[in-house]
Amino acid sequence: MASTRARIALDAMGGDDAPAAIVAGAILAQTELADVDVILVGDPDRIQACLDRHPNAPKIEVVPAEGTIEMHEEPLGALRRKPKASINVSMQLVKDGKADAVVSAGHSGAAMAAALLRLGRLRGIDRPAIAAVFPTNRADKSVLILDVGANVDCRPKYLEQFAVMGSIYSQYVLGVESPKVGLLNIGEEESKGNAVALEAHEILQQNPHINFVGNAEGRDVLSGNFDTIVCDGFVGNILLKFAEAVGNIVVQMLKEELPRGLNGKVGTALLKPNLKRLKKRIDAAEHGGGLLLGVEGVCIISHGSSDAFSIANAIRSAKSAVDKNIIAQIQSSTRDTAPRKETTVAGD
Amino acid sequence: MASTRARIALDAMGGDDAPAAIVAGAILAQTELADVDVILVGDPDRIQACLDRHPNAPKIEVVPAEGTIEMHEEPLGALRRKPKASINVSMQLVKDGKADAVVSAGHSGAAMAAALLRLGRLRGIDRPAIAAVFPTNRADKSVLILDVGANVDCRPKYLEQFAVMGSIYSQYVLGVESPKVGLLNIGEEESKGNAVALEAHEILQQNPHINFVGNAEGRDVLSGNFDTIVCDGFVGNILLKFAEAVGNIVVQMLKEELPRGLNGKVGTALLKPNLKRLKKRIDAAEHGGGLLLGVEGVCIISHGSSDAFSIANAIRSAKSAVDKNIIAQIQSSTRDTAPRKETTVAGD
Repeated sequence: MASTRARIALDAMGGDDAPAAIVAGAILAQTELADVDVILVGDPDRIQACLDRHPNAPKIEVVPAEGTIEMHEEPLGALRRKPKASINVSMQLVKDGKADAVVSAGHSGAAMAAALLRLGRLRGIDRPAIAAVFPTNRADKSVLILDVGANVDCRPKYLEQFAVMGSIYSQYVLGVESPKVGLLNIGEEESKGNAVALEAHEILQQNPHINFVGNAEGRDVLSGNFDTIVCDGFVGNILLKFAEAVGNIVVQMLKEELPRGLNGKVGTALLKPNLKRLKKRIDAAEHGGGLLLGVEGVCIISHGSSDAFSIANAIRSAKSAVDKNIIAQIQSSTRDTAPRKETTVAGD
Repeated sequence: MASTRARIALDAMGGDDAPAAIVAGAILAQTELADVDVILVGDPDRIQACLDRHPNAPKIEVVPAEGTIEMHEEPLGALRRKPKASINVSMQLVKDGKADAVVSAGHSGAAMAAALLRLGRLRGIDRPAIAAVFPTNRADKSVLILDVGANVDCRPKYLEQFAVMGSIYSQYVLGVESPKVGLLNIGEEESKGNAVALEAHEILQQNPHINFVGNAEGRDVLSGNFDTIVCDGFVGNILLKFAEAVGNIVVQMLKEELPRGLNGKVGTALLKPNLKRLKKRIDAAEHGGGLLLGVEGVCIISHGSSDAFSIANAIRSAKSAVDKNIIAQIQSSTRDTAPRKETTVAGD
């Protein structure tokens, strides 16, 4: 599959600056990435109006949809009331084999629910999780954290499934041989943690399909010593949003503190390229979004605040996951370990 | 009480570089802080050897103790096996009215357990919590987070008690009028969160003794929009350690990226004082430690890695809490709200 084109269904109506920012991201991706066909899904007139602002843009297919799920709407009810909403139509394109992946910067709960309803869970996975790539202390290394928000309360076996899926993603998409898997916890010792962490530690240790190296403390997250770290979506979401905010705060502090005084102004001017490189290392937004792992299709859930650059990066991530055949890889791994009967997959 | 001297029992044997770093911190505090009497608790010979290295230091009282709780030891058993361990003797000084506060950089679990055993819980408090002061986005504002590690699993009513204690600390020690209290959660809406957060949100809203302003997301922690944020000790500990590591990583990235090239070297040299100020804003270690709230005495639990500067800051924090009579303030507030019968306080 690595040599074929990847068709990415892009929810043009989801996001704070949709459809303008999304269409701009589509154009950027279509221009810069090889072997990608972006499909813009949404209101054809509004999309066309955005496309018209980029007269030199490559031609991009538009698939019509009606309406979008608003941020205040309860996902399940809204998805049912609006079967032709852009996120529903995007997922259906994957379901029907007309697209290989979905990217959406809209209502993340709705994107998750639409993926579950239209694509379904992978066999052996009780709860899909959102995985996010964090930069680390080491410039050449990133770490995959999951779940960052899909499941607020997790059973130990969900964390085990996250570990298997994350490990496969780290290996095939991020190119890490034998990814080191950690369990986010409050101490290194296996006796540390809350009830879920204690039990999860034990079953992770026993799982032969992953390279579990132990607990990861808060201080270890960005150390580069772990490739995949699993946690429940409550802790993971707080950590993700905290990390993003810290990045912004540091950049703001640099702007406030560095140019003070004459020496400060001259020094800051001299440092401009170096500061730019620093900002790039700090800025996690470049990574473009979370990957929903555990459903029968590649789905990237991007920030509502995504700009064209973030959308293009999300499309790049989606293409990597398609190229590396990540769904089949996860499915073949969970098929080995999961109980055969469908009833056990249906949840509890 | 604000005008009297504060007597601080300092566990000289606890910490990675004890007793040398602890004794150096005691001397720094005794020299720089007015109205403080530090009491060094530990092996008299080893303490004296450290004191001898500072011939011009002011005279500091030494109270002998035998042994210390090692990091690998299980706290309760070790505290019972070693009744004369430095942390036990330190707590007993407060219990006997011979000291006003304890500062320890030793085994934090042992410090908590010793405080509970020797000093006891405050009436109306089911679980003491460790509170940590974080710097925020706004240079003149900090935020108190609790719990950062004492209780890995929390019931909603514990979070309510944390909110009351934290609010009082913010008001009396940090000088915030009507502190804004937030509940750490994954969304602003009250419908968001795990089971504990949902219930906690409801009871926090109903508590008339605090100014509860709603959920705080990960991105809000350092925004300066909240004065006190409550969470369980699992999330809080991960966040604390993550935040500390991020501070170190940013400082390291600055060192790596800024001096690159000739312009970089010149620019960095010009920026030296500004970078120093930036580092100070980022560096949370200056805050000196967590405060154990909910026991009958002022206890500061410092980092194992504390240097003299951190220890002196912890002593400063202890003195503030003593000056502001924080224990009585909490007690008078929880007395109003808590059930009268001791049995309900004894926990569950």
